[in-house]
Amino acid sequence: GTGVATMKFKSPPVNSLSLDFLTEFCISLEKLENNRACRGVIITSAVPKIFSSGLDITEMCGKSTEHYAEFWRAVQEMWLRLYGSNMVTVAAVNGSSPAGGCLIALSCDYRIMVENPKFSIGLNEAQLGIVAPFWFKDTFVNIVGHRVAERSLQLGSLHPAPEAHRFGLVDELVPEEKLQEKTGAVMAQWLALPDHARQLTKSMMRKAVLDRLVAHREEDIQNFISFISKESIQKSLRMYMEMLKKKKG
Amino acid sequence: GTGVATMKFKSPPVNSLSLDFLTEFCISLEKLENNRACRGVIITSAVPKIFSSGLDITEMCGKSTEHYAEFWRAVQEMWLRLYGSNMVTVAAVNGSSPAGGCLIALSCDYRIMVENPKFSIGLNEAQLGIVAPFWFKDTFVNIVGHRVAERSLQLGSLHPAPEAHRFGLVDELVPEEKLQEKTGAVMAQWLALPDHARQLTKSMMRKAVLDRLVAHREEDIQNFISFISKESIQKSLRMYMEMLKKKKG
Amino acid sequence: GTGVATMKFKSPPVNSLSLDFLTEFCISLEKLENNRACRGVIITSAVPKIFSSGLDITEMCGKSTEHYAEFWRAVQEMWLRLYGSNMVTVAAVNGSSPAGGCLIALSCDYRIMVENPKFSIGLNEAQLGIVAPFWFKDTFVNIVGHRVAERSLQLGSLHPAPEAHRFGLVDELVPEEKLQEKTGAVMAQWLALPDHARQLTKSMMRKAVLDRLVAHREEDIQNFISFISKESIQKSLRMYMEMLKKKKG
Repeated sequence: GTGVATMKFKSPPVNSLSLDFLTEFCISLEKLENNRACRGVIITSAVPKIFSSGLDITEMCGKSTEHYAEFWRAVQEMWLRLYGSNMVTVAAVNGSSPAGGCLIALSCDYRIMVENPKFSIGLNEAQLGIVAPFWFKDTFVNIVGHRVAERSLQLGSLHPAPEAHRFGLVDELVPEEKLQEKTGAVMAQWLALPDHARQLTKSMMRKAVLDRLVAHREEDIQNFISFISKESIQKSLRMYMEMLKKKKG
Repeated sequence: GTGVATMKFKSPPVNSLSLDFLTEFCISLEKLENNRACRGVIITSAVPKIFSSGLDITEMCGKSTEHYAEFWRAVQEMWLRLYGSNMVTVAAVNGSSPAGGCLIALSCDYRIMVENPKFSIGLNEAQLGIVAPFWFKDTFVNIVGHRVAERSLQLGSLHPAPEAHRFGLVDELVPEEKLQEKTGAVMAQWLALPDHARQLTKSMMRKAVLDRLVAHREEDIQNFISFISKESIQKSLRMYMEMLKKKKG
Repeated sequence: GTGVATMKFKSPPVNSLSLDFLTEFCISLEKLENNRACRGVIITSAVPKIFSSGLDITEMCGKSTEHYAEFWRAVQEMWLRLYGSNMVTVAAVNGSSPAGGCLIALSCDYRIMVENPKFSIGLNEAQLGIVAPFWFKDTFVNIVGHRVAERSLQLGSLHPAPEAHRFGLVDELVPEEKLQEKTGAVMAQWLALPDHARQLTKSMMRKAVLDRLVAHREEDIQNFISFISKESIQKSLRMYMEMLKKKKG
């Protein structure tokens, strides 16, 4: 084998990150991580035009405190595993990728995006009246720097692919038909390095930010619960869901 | 109302930041901050060709220790309020903006500068033989990154508008006659976001740097006093004032 | 005198950083540092096509624990003195500059590189199966930012001069025949500033990263020893040396 796995998100209509999706994602990732034959993983979508629409809002709306806690822990777990993965991780972003979908791309080692300007990517939480957690922010700052992150997070910007590329939010743009070929070539380039030195280097770069969530994990869950339980937030999420339904209908 | 206030610096000849100016600036800012109808503030100058020339050197020259302490506390207070403001703050930089003038612009959420290359902006303290305090530096690094900041601060550079834009020190350049229109458009874009999420996001981005001054505020005042009281520094400030007078005369 | 010294590396064939070389370099630097007439130093190479090839691998291969400790302490000492120098330091990079050679350039205040695309520069340790120490990484991040550093370090990239310039790894490219003139002009620009303010500013920018090594110096030596003593690392270094010999032969 080539030592490269592909994880293809296939949860129509928009690959939203439900509790089930996240749990399955973590299990798959853990299996690959423990499989010594697997050295790299490509993350992409089987759903046309969407990479992932981010956290599933139905998991955050009208549920119990226990459910919120379980859901948030799963979101944290996904990020801790992906950002801290020993494998080479390449995101082949073949559709739009807001909020949690953007986080998945940001957590990889390299991001290739289809150059279609209709596809956009960004941490747009502020648009929904919610706040990206500090570790979303830390991951974002590590890639685009403090200034671009501050502006983009405050405006809840969704950046069309060309703009995302200009900011360094994605590393490369390719025509859709070249995505697979390019992704394979990038993966081969990264796998040409000795694993051990590459892994230690990756860990050196990401450890501070990973450790910060590990140290504040329970606090972060409590923050999420108390924020999401507010009636004003619940109301704005319900309105947002209504809007999505109408759009679809 | 639109919920947007405009603060127009009008302290000829060069809008220097005297103790009186700073005190008035802080009071105005506090009033707006406490006015729930006010969501954004535009900061600009009524003096042609000058945004603000920075700290008033006469406040730092031949005065008592108590005066230096009071003055420096006012400088700190201005920055703490502006950088930590809950309002959307946009700097419409319609003239040169050295040192403390630059700090005011850097502390806003967005900077639009008139594209006139005769207008320059930068933390040029080193040119005067003095050192920008750590929180000027932190604010600067957050915007332009470590490398650009290191070089610019060591050289005490005043960047002409086009260069400032290239470095990301200002976000946008416009012809002078378009400044007001553009500033209004940018403000509208930022105000389109829900206040609460935007404010929490802003605080998340700026808290570390704000907290650092709060934690070291008295120490920073003592540092300023002992530095500014040195005979060598007093001498170079006196020479600088002489030079300014001759230039004017 | 002009107050500017030039240190010209002259240790053919490739200016590798042996224990002797590092010791001599530190002594020279200390002498200049203590010479109040000397305000700036230009670092360049007398060996054609090579600035410095980095740490001398023979010092890391088949030697005693004591030797490794002594060698690593000398590498640390070199960096602490150069990155923390009170003088203006300009690297005139007139040849390739991998690994430790790159670190020397990164530790200066300004980097001018000959625009020959055959000359490359970078922290390519990962290519050799080893990991750049955290303070190499910190120095690199301070210049190119977190994202470029993460990618470059993981891939062990050697960047041709034009690419290095695009990333900000070097500040300027010049034709070889203009290198000396340009270096002199840059030095003059930096020396135009009052020393004291410039030095305090430099220290403010670099102190956090310098202090981090000072605080973890012995630990860093132990890490180096235990890493370099591994049979797998020794083997890969021996293979690398064989390859270099064949290349030469």
